[in-house]
Parts: sequence; C-alpha cells; structure tokens
Amino acid sequence: MYGIFSYDIGSPRVGYKHGQQILDLEIVGLLGFFKDLGFDPAVFARPALNQFIALGKPIWQAVGERIRHLLSDDESALNDVRAQVLIHEDRARLHLPVRIGDYTDFYAGIYHAENVGRMFRPNGEPLLPNYRHLPVAYHGRASSIVVSGTPIRRPSGQMSGVDGQPVFGPSQALDFELEVGLIIGKSNPLGEPVPIAEAEDYIFGITLFNDWSARDIQRWEYQPLGPFLGKNFGSSLSAWVVPLIDLEPFRVAGPVQEPTPLPYLQTARDGHFDLQVEVALRPLDGDEMIISRTNTRHLYWSFAQMVAHHTVNGCNLNIGDVLATGTISGPDPGGYGSLLELSWNGNRPLRLSDGSQRTFLQDGDTVTLRGWGNKNGVRIDLDEVTGSILPVFRPAKHPQAIQ
Amino acid sequence: MYGIFSYDIGSPRVGYKHGQQILDLEIVGLLGFFKDLGFDPAVFARPALNQFIALGKPIWQAVGERIRHLLSDDESALNDVRAQVLIHEDRARLHLPVRIGDYTDFYAGIYHAENVGRMFRPNGEPLLPNYRHLPVAYHGRASSIVVSGTPIRRPSGQMSGVDGQPVFGPSQALDFELEVGLIIGKSNPLGEPVPIAEAEDYIFGITLFNDWSARDIQRWEYQPLGPFLGKNFGSSLSAWVVPLIDLEPFRVAGPVQEPTPLPYLQTARDGHFDLQVEVALRPLDGDEMIISRTNTRHLYWSFAQMVAHHTVNGCNLNIGDVLATGTISGPDPGGYGSLLELSWNGNRPLRLSDGSQRTFLQDGDTVTLRGWGNKNGVRIDLDEVTGSILPVFRPAKHPQAIQ
Repeated sequence: MYGIFSYDIGSPRVGYKHGQQILDLEIVGLLGFFKDLGFDPAVFARPALNQFIALGKPIWQAVGERIRHLLSDDESALNDVRAQVLIHEDRARLHLPVRIGDYTDFYAGIYHAENVGRMFRPNGEPLLPNYRHLPVAYHGRASSIVVSGTPIRRPSGQMSGVDGQPVFGPSQALDFELEVGLIIGKSNPLGEPVPIAEAEDYIFGITLFNDWSARDIQRWEYQPLGPFLGKNFGSSLSAWVVPLIDLEPFRVAGPVQEPTPLPYLQTARDGHFDLQVEVALRPLDGDEMIISRTNTRHLYWSFAQMVAHHTVNGCNLNIGDVLATGTISGPDPGGYGSLLELSWNGNRPLRLSDGSQRTFLQDGDTVTLRGWGNKNGVRIDLDEVTGSILPVFRPAKHPQAIQ
Repeated sequence: MYGIFSYDIGSPRVGYKHGQQILDLEIVGLLGFFKDLGFDPAVFARPALNQFIALGKPIWQAVGERIRHLLSDDESALNDVRAQVLIHEDRARLHLPVRIGDYTDFYAGIYHAENVGRMFRPNGEPLLPNYRHLPVAYHGRASSIVVSGTPIRRPSGQMSGVDGQPVFGPSQALDFELEVGLIIGKSNPLGEPVPIAEAEDYIFGITLFNDWSARDIQRWEYQPLGPFLGKNFGSSLSAWVVPLIDLEPFRVAGPVQEPTPLPYLQTARDGHFDLQVEVALRPLDGDEMIISRTNTRHLYWSFAQMVAHHTVNGCNLNIGDVLATGTISGPDPGGYGSLLELSWNGNRPLRLSDGSQRTFLQDGDTVTLRGWGNKNGVRIDLDEVTGSILPVFRPAKHPQAIQ
C-alpha cells in the first residue's frame, strides 16, 4: 500500500506500508535501490503520489516487485539500512495520498439504491428506470476530502420544518457511507472516451472511502439537481492506496446484469473483487462495535464500467481523481452500508456497547471502515478510514456581543 | 480585465486587457512599476492568476489603480516601453485564467427554472418547494472547463429510446447555457462558514461562462442524483476576469425575495449587478445572429448569497474555484438563456441567417456569449466566451478493421 507520510521534522514523502512499518521510499530511492528501473526516484520525495503514478503501469509493477523483494524475509539487502528506511507507523503522520483534481461519486450499490427507493418512494418501484442501464453518478466536492483520522465537523443547514417551511440548524441526521474510492492512474484527453477493454488501465488503486452525509439537509435541497451541502462538508479517504494489480487474486464475477447493458459497458472479463468490508462505531465513552459487514462484490457495476461510462461522452479523467463507488450494502440488514439503512430511516435504533441508542451519529462518535481480501491463502489489507464527529461550528463572538 | 496570455515563444503569464491591447504585467513588474506596492511581481510570471489573487483584496485594488494610472492618456511613464509591454490581442494566445480546484453550478436564474419546470412538469408548480428558500446548486466537473475559443466535441451517450429502452449515439439535443462564473478570491477553512456580510470579499471577479449541455443525455441520467454526462463533456470560461470591485457602478437591488430567506441569506446591501448579456449563434457558412439578450439582474439569488449558502455547512472554497450562476434567462422569450427554452424543447425552431432552422446545435455552429455594463456614462466590457461544435469523436480504426 502506498501513501504519503512524514515523521520528525521531515517533509511529506511517499511510503509503502508493510504491516506496522512504513518503508520510506524517498530514502530507499536515494540509496539506489531503484536505480536500474529507469525512473527518477525523486517522485518519492513529493507530497502526493501523483508524480509516481504518472510514471505508468510498467513502473508501478516494477516498483511493486522490487519492494516485495526488498521486504521479503530471505532478502538481506536492506539489513544495514533497516533503521534508516523502516519507520513504525506510530511515529508517522499521515497525509492525503493524492492531489485530487475531481471527485465523482457513483451509486453502484444496488441493495443501497433499492433500500433508499423503498424508504422514499414506498409506492413505486425501488429502482428508477435508468438504474440497470447505466452507473448513475454525480460530481462531489474535491476540496473537502480529508485523510483518515481527520475529525468531521457536524454541518448546519436548511432542512424541512413542520409546516413545510424550512428551518436552520445543526444536522440531526448525520450519517456515514461505506464506499471504496478508485484512484485514477492515467489521463485521457478531453473528447476521447476510454474503451471498456482498457478501462482498468486507468485505475492506479483503491482506498476505503467514507462519504459522510447529512440526510436532513440532503432531503430538502436535492431536487432537482442532486446532493450538494448534504455531502460536501467532508469526505474521508484512507491514507493508503492498494494497487489494483495487487487485487488480482480476489477477482470474481459480479452480479448477472439483466438487461444486458449497452455495448460500451460490456466486457468479457470478470470485473468485480471479493473484498470484505466492515463498519465499526465507537461512542465517545464506549467500546467499538461492528455494525455492518459486507463485500465489494455486491456492487452492481464494476470499476471498469464506471470508468468507461464516465468517459463515454469524452469527459477527461486526470491522475489522482477519485471515483467512489457509492454506498456498498449487502442483501441482508447486517450488511447495510449506512445508518439510514441500518436504522431504516431512524425507525429502528441500534443499541451500542455503552447501552445508548443510535439512529444517526452523535458528537464524539467515531466511525471506522476496514477492508481486506482473504482467499486461497492470500491475504491483502485495505487498511482503514476513520473519523470522529466534532460539535457544530460556533463562530467566535463579536466584541460587541461580549458587552 | 486580468487573464493569462502568451505570444511568440514566451511562456504564459498574466496580462491586463485594455481595448485591443494586452498589458504584459510580467514585464511591467520587471520594469519596477509595482515596486512600491509591497509584493513580489513574480506572481505575474505564473501561468494562472491564483498566486496574484492570493495576495488579497488590498493588493488587487492597488494594482488595479496603478494599471489604470499607467494606461491613462495623460500618463507618460509607459511611453518609452510601450512597444515592450503592450501586445495587440491578435498576437496573443489565451489560456485558462485560473487553476480551478472545484466548480459549482447554481440554478439562480428563476425564469430559467420556471421555464424548465413548465416544460417537464406541466401539471405541477413550475418551481419546486425549495427554490425560493435556498440557491439550488450541484457540483460540476472542473477538468473539462476550457478557455474561450476551444472547440467543443459533440458528446455521445445513452438516451431514452422509443420503447423505454435506452439507445446509444451522438447527442441530438446539444445546447448552450448563458451563465456568469464567479472566480473565488479567498479561501475559508474547512468547517468554517463565510457570513453573508463578508461573502463578496471571497469573490475576485467574474467571467462569462457557457455550460454546454446535452439535454437528451441529461434527461435519461439525472434521476435521482442530478446532471452528470449531460454536462461534463465541456464548459467554456472567458479568458478575461473582470474584478468584482470594478462592478460597483453597476450594483443594483435584485428581485424582491418572497418569502424572506433564512437569516444566513439575508443582507441589507444590494447584491445584484446591472450587466447586459447576449448570445450570438453563427452557423458554419452563415452570419452571426443575436438570439438572446438579457441582464444578470434577473438572477434570483445574489453572488453573496451563493457564497454564504455554499459555505454554511462548512464547505471550504479555494482561490480559483468557479461558482457559476446557472442559466440566466429574462422574463421574455427574447431573453431566454438556452436553446431548450428558446425553441421550447424543440417545438419552436429558430430561423438563422442562412435560412436554416435550429432547435439544438449542429456541428459547425459557433456560440458566443458577450456582456457589458453601461450606466451613467461608465462602461465596462465583460469580453466574450465562444466555442464551435466539432463532430462526434470517431476512434481511429484498428488495423484489422482496415483489411
């Protein structure tokens, strides 16, 4: 897993997480361990992965192999410099792994979409007519994406009041969304679609992603142009990016897509991944509890289909862009990926470890998403993305208010 | 008006447009004309306005005054260097004026919103219940914003077919949208709203903005999360940014807002601007025709209200972000700001100068938006944003297809 870290007085640079250790790739590069691979290791001295990613897939592969070799038990090359290049994660400060240009959020979790449809359109079909034909998506806010561990401030905003008149106040329906974020690894020119057969080449890797949502703000604002302030107060990205090429052992077929999508979304190759994901909720003075367990293979649309759809009109993707999947819910209530679904719109409170109940998040709550793959003896860790809720912002009092 | 230009073999730098001349601010700075103003003129050697903007409002004002003084008729300071610092616009190549982090599109044109409501919800109220309570907005795509003059490729995509099944093909309902883009001039920290009384301090200036739209793609995809591929294939920004402080002579009251919005959107100060805007359409082999004339004062929500609303949940704005107003339509059909409205969803074709008809744009059509203020003898030019439609993308044939 690649990420950006700093420690002591050093500036942020690229690291590779290995267990609880972080391999300092800037120093490894300065020591000459990459010098036969034909690239300038100064890319590892940068405060974002973008320059490394821009070197392209053959270099990602070569660097990955070299790192695994250096870290392997029977390799003594690092022995003399171990203390210099391996830093325990407790000493490290973590930073946003990429400089994000644009952020797109899909709606590829079909069980989530069905649950939302059942709650808000109880008399209609759970899925809208376009759902099985295209990966529905909208643009999100890139500026408010923060790295795992950053606290999230409860947003205030307009919401619907009792008599149809809006009221203003702190959100009373603050939620998380369990998602995976794709980190774009290759740019396409504006006007030139990416064919689905090449789509995975445009993905560098994946992260865990929490698309915090204020359901009450969202519900009042979202017609007719979609979510805005109900989402853009903050989204959390994990600090570590798992290269897509490392996920091959977990590749599986996705759900049967019926009706068959249009040709630009068709692919012969299995495009889903068998990765476990879970959500833990910890109240301020209580213990953590796992409140949801599911799997990324429950997504209806594959990563490749998301890239092909996003660019079919010529829209250009750039290195470092984030494409999030949308909420990943499983078919059963134990695998729902948001409190909206877990509490069924506030009607079925969850009981937490400290005896308290939750429909939506309270100040001081900590939400942690985790993920991993485990198959045929191969295990891969997706690390985690975590964040705690801060109370609503109170502006400093004006001098005259103190009088 | 500030922008980014290059000429001959020089690299892009900051210029100030004055009539048909561009004042090369990099050279003016190197010659020492700003040296008493207390900033490093190297900001003018950059390929985007962001660094200059980051110097803050007092410097914007001081630089503006200095430039006006240097360019005034009775000023001879520039005489010896005129040929060195003034470049005719015909020699210049224009670039995107700012490095854009995020782009937000509002829906502040109430006549546009009403027209769309009448067309698509003929049996309901033209405006949705939230419209007069908050400035509806959604996030757009920053990567596909191009500078005026860049051709726009007709997008392909899914749209609704005859039997409810989607079909794939080039958009047959390609449209423009007449908008103004605000260029953000100051950043707020994530989590800290901008009070409306300070909101205009966060706007550096305005541009003309064309939010090209594929209505058929948009109509099929937009439920429930808003526009996506119907918009993100391209948006055009004018090359020149007019500082907001230069618009003071055109400040006017906006429409009466009834019901009164919530306190965070209330301001005692007039927040609208009396600026003429128009749309010209030129077919490939014909003459240009003005197809719409209206005024930015017809927007329902003010610029300050847009900034206050956007940040009320703590969302952070960054220098160089673009906030577009949404389509500006006047109350009368001659002032509608899109072909969707001008042709009333394709039912009333426009007749052009070459005798052809238009419901939506054809390949080779050129759309130019222009704007200006003219009041009490003071005139200000908003320049223009223009773009021509290229035919749909055809991928290069594979070798085997040539056999």
